[in-house]
Amino acid sequence: MSMNGAESLVHTLLASGIDTCFANPGTSEMHFVAALDRVPGMRCILGLQENVVTGAADGYARIAGKPAATLLHCGPGLANGWANLHNGRRANTMMVNCVGDQATYHRPLDAPLTADTEGLARAVSGWVRTCTTAEEVGAQAAVAAQAAQTSPGTIATLILPSDTCWNDGGVVAARLPIPAAPTAAPHAVKIAAELLRNGKKTLIVLGNGALRAGPVADAHRIAAATGADVIAAGSNGRVERGRGRHPVNRIPYPVDQSVGLLKQYAQVILVGTPKPVIFFAYPNKPGTPVPADAQLHVMTRPEHDQVQALAALADELGNPAHVPHTGAATAELGRGKITTEAFAATLATLMPENAIIADESVTFGRAFFPATHHAAPHDWLNVTGGAIGGGIPLATGAAIAAPDRRVINLQADGSAMYTIQGLWTQARENLDITTVIFSNRKYQILIGELANVGANPGRTAMDMLDLGNPDIDFVKLSEGMGVPGAHATTMEQLNDLLAGSLNRKGPFLIEAII
Amino acid sequence: MSMNGAESLVHTLLASGIDTCFANPGTSEMHFVAALDRVPGMRCILGLQENVVTGAADGYARIAGKPAATLLHCGPGLANGWANLHNGRRANTMMVNCVGDQATYHRPLDAPLTADTEGLARAVSGWVRTCTTAEEVGAQAAVAAQAAQTSPGTIATLILPSDTCWNDGGVVAARLPIPAAPTAAPHAVKIAAELLRNGKKTLIVLGNGALRAGPVADAHRIAAATGADVIAAGSNGRVERGRGRHPVNRIPYPVDQSVGLLKQYAQVILVGTPKPVIFFAYPNKPGTPVPADAQLHVMTRPEHDQVQALAALADELGNPAHVPHTGAATAELGRGKITTEAFAATLATLMPENAIIADESVTFGRAFFPATHHAAPHDWLNVTGGAIGGGIPLATGAAIAAPDRRVINLQADGSAMYTIQGLWTQARENLDITTVIFSNRKYQILIGELANVGANPGRTAMDMLDLGNPDIDFVKLSEGMGVPGAHATTMEQLNDLLAGSLNRKGPFLIEAII
Repeated sequence: MSMNGAESLVHTLLASGIDTCFANPGTSEMHFVAALDRVPGMRCILGLQENVVTGAADGYARIAGKPAATLLHCGPGLANGWANLHNGRRANTMMVNCVGDQATYHRPLDAPLTADTEGLARAVSGWVRTCTTAEEVGAQAAVAAQAAQTSPGTIATLILPSDTCWNDGGVVAARLPIPAAPTAAPHAVKIAAELLRNGKKTLIVLGNGALRAGPVADAHRIAAATGADVIAAGSNGRVERGRGRHPVNRIPYPVDQSVGLLKQYAQVILVGTPKPVIFFAYPNKPGTPVPADAQLHVMTRPEHDQVQALAALADELGNPAHVPHTGAATAELGRGKITTEAFAATLATLMPENAIIADESVTFGRAFFPATHHAAPHDWLNVTGGAIGGGIPLATGAAIAAPDRRVINLQADGSAMYTIQGLWTQARENLDITTVIFSNRKYQILIGELANVGANPGRTAMDMLDLGNPDIDFVKLSEGMGVPGAHATTMEQLNDLLAGSLNRKGPFLIEAII
Repeated sequence: MSMNGAESLVHTLLASGIDTCFANPGTSEMHFVAALDRVPGMRCILGLQENVVTGAADGYARIAGKPAATLLHCGPGLANGWANLHNGRRANTMMVNCVGDQATYHRPLDAPLTADTEGLARAVSGWVRTCTTAEEVGAQAAVAAQAAQTSPGTIATLILPSDTCWNDGGVVAARLPIPAAPTAAPHAVKIAAELLRNGKKTLIVLGNGALRAGPVADAHRIAAATGADVIAAGSNGRVERGRGRHPVNRIPYPVDQSVGLLKQYAQVILVGTPKPVIFFAYPNKPGTPVPADAQLHVMTRPEHDQVQALAALADELGNPAHVPHTGAATAELGRGKITTEAFAATLATLMPENAIIADESVTFGRAFFPATHHAAPHDWLNVTGGAIGGGIPLATGAAIAAPDRRVINLQADGSAMYTIQGLWTQARENLDITTVIFSNRKYQILIGELANVGANPGRTAMDMLDLGNPDIDFVKLSEGMGVPGAHATTMEQLNDLLAGSLNRKGPFLIEAII
């Protein structure tokens, strides 16, 4: 059967197990779009701006455990989605970007949309190829799918000049095997065991695959047997947590807090995560919370099999007994004024079994994570790369991946405005997402940062951090995109709205005025 | 007086004549923000997403005739604003981007927001520097301002690691001279004159600086004396036009139309614009509308002084008389159903003197430009790089540059959703902008493109091009961001709303359901 390059692409993605595509197509992608009609099986989800598309693909992969495809239009379309690709890169997210571009022979004419597509892709992808013929599209797509899924996961970007899509000669490629994650080096496990036995104060830092319930439990029995402490990296793609699972805190964001917390440790063992680093440099503050004289040991890197590694370490330590975790949910709703503590209590109480939390609550939300250790079992997703505008898209993609689970997006107002368009996709796909916007009507985090630089901000500076004048009405924005919503100014209202939203199908938005 | 790098930056920008800054700052820009309080004179305008910031800086420069600064946050912030930088690049827009970034000594630690900022900048800027000390910030800023304004204008990007902003030692640099635009090569003018005298059918294509009223008039007297035709490039940063000025059409976007129009010409003379090129390649269609056997002559490139060049050409041709242009406005409002022709008539009738049109009306708006040759004198701004999402930001920046002029943004619905956040800035700054959204609730241009690829679209393909389900309510979106608005389903309603909006202060949005 003769087919064009675009058809071979869709067939190959499906053969490789990729059946979901987040898309914002343009002219150069029309052969891919046309192929969707002829090749059944690919679910396509439209986003109105590309940072919604890429952020949703990130959220999807974190929950589905396999990559989605994206469909993006030329260099500028890739640029529009770049920030959430950056977040995905920092979460080691599996993703296959398909970026349509100028035809091979048209590129030298420098038509208006022509840009350095490959350069943009390379800065944010672990794997990049530009096809030059229809014949190779299938083979390259299969390699892209393989690259994306090779541990610890990466963003693979396949650039498709339009003639490679419309020309005949497409060849479907078979699924390629995914290499197993490498096991930890035995000497690295031995060294970790020795450090844990030497009596010095030790911190075990978990990241990536070490943050699933199983390895977290293993880390806790290791800690209980050796007196070490366990913590998670500051920002993580997915943490399995909640009732019945061992609680694990995260390294705090504020520099003074993280430095203060880690200064007690003489030894730091990294399991699946790079050395902790402060988010930004500040004058006369360290760049890492790890004490300068602490011994740092990399037991595993992100690409290793963290489950195997922690089991091996437990073995090395004489297989200490599992420790039951203590603590139970305090089922009490927050009352009165909407505060971070009050909402944290409500969240811990109302969170349904198996929920997914997409957390971009920034300053207001710093209490939410520690307060929900003993909520119903759930997954917690962070915006991992610090590029704000991740929350709404992450929630959207997670809901596509898990139609039987409720997604709760804890969302700061300033950050929400970067990708507010994602609400439309939630309405269109009728996704079970509750978005709670925490409207403080300012870039609160930056007011803190301005204080950190020693400034006593005047009117001009404060104007740059103020989201009032005019106040944004998120309920109107939401309704304008087909998502019903309501305002809450007290915890009582917020409790009712949140509980109600969790019991209905489809998306709902609550703007909490704080 | 001792000052830090950030203060020297603000002082130097002001000394260089740059007194307007579109901003979306983050932590690494807090010293710049703090400096705004201490250094008076810089007007800062906040955008809620970076593509609003960069597109507004583009619109500002096109109207002000001088650059604005932007303030962007690290690689992801630059990426968010990249698409409208791409549009600005294609318009040869003057702009000075200030991009804050990780401190020089913090970058090697690869903190989460660390990215290839310089690579992103280089792909879209004519000039890029990364400062390494506070001492050099002022000098580099002065060179950036000079580079941005060197003909034909470019995007200059200055990357500022945060320690170069907070360290003391800043030195204010004086304004650097802007080199004059080069005059046309005399032999290039002579060759143009010879071609225009040889009796062959000739087309003069104008771009960039040749599209101001003066050079357009000169082009018309040259054409009248020689029998040549005059046309503008397909998409232009700014065209001065309207009553009392000579009309000039643009090369049409659709490939068949542009090829059909240009096939009659044996000679094509380029004045300030590159060789015309088709926007995208299509199977078995040419890449340029210029006939393969036509003689192409580059009289001037975009950086040349187009005013001088056309005057020199007229001289060479014996100084032909100015021709009065014919044609007068037909002052008749469109009636009944909202069609492209009906709205074009209304626009031609109601457009106030000295208006600025920010045109991102895409498919529905193709009749607007030809129908308004004889409207009141105005400037017409196109989205020049084909990256959609330019219209709302362009209008915003143009209104900042010209507070005494009305801006009318003709805006397709699909494109509007890429940078809808710009409405908030319009409300905050109380800008005199009327936005008319043409809601066809689909990506109409792509439905045409899908037909071009020969596809008979089925349900799955059409879903990717459909903006209904749910319909977007642009009035709710607008009101949610503080811009009042109303719907129109007939020309009578649209006429009333448009006329009313032109007579009020501040922004207004009309959603025309078409």
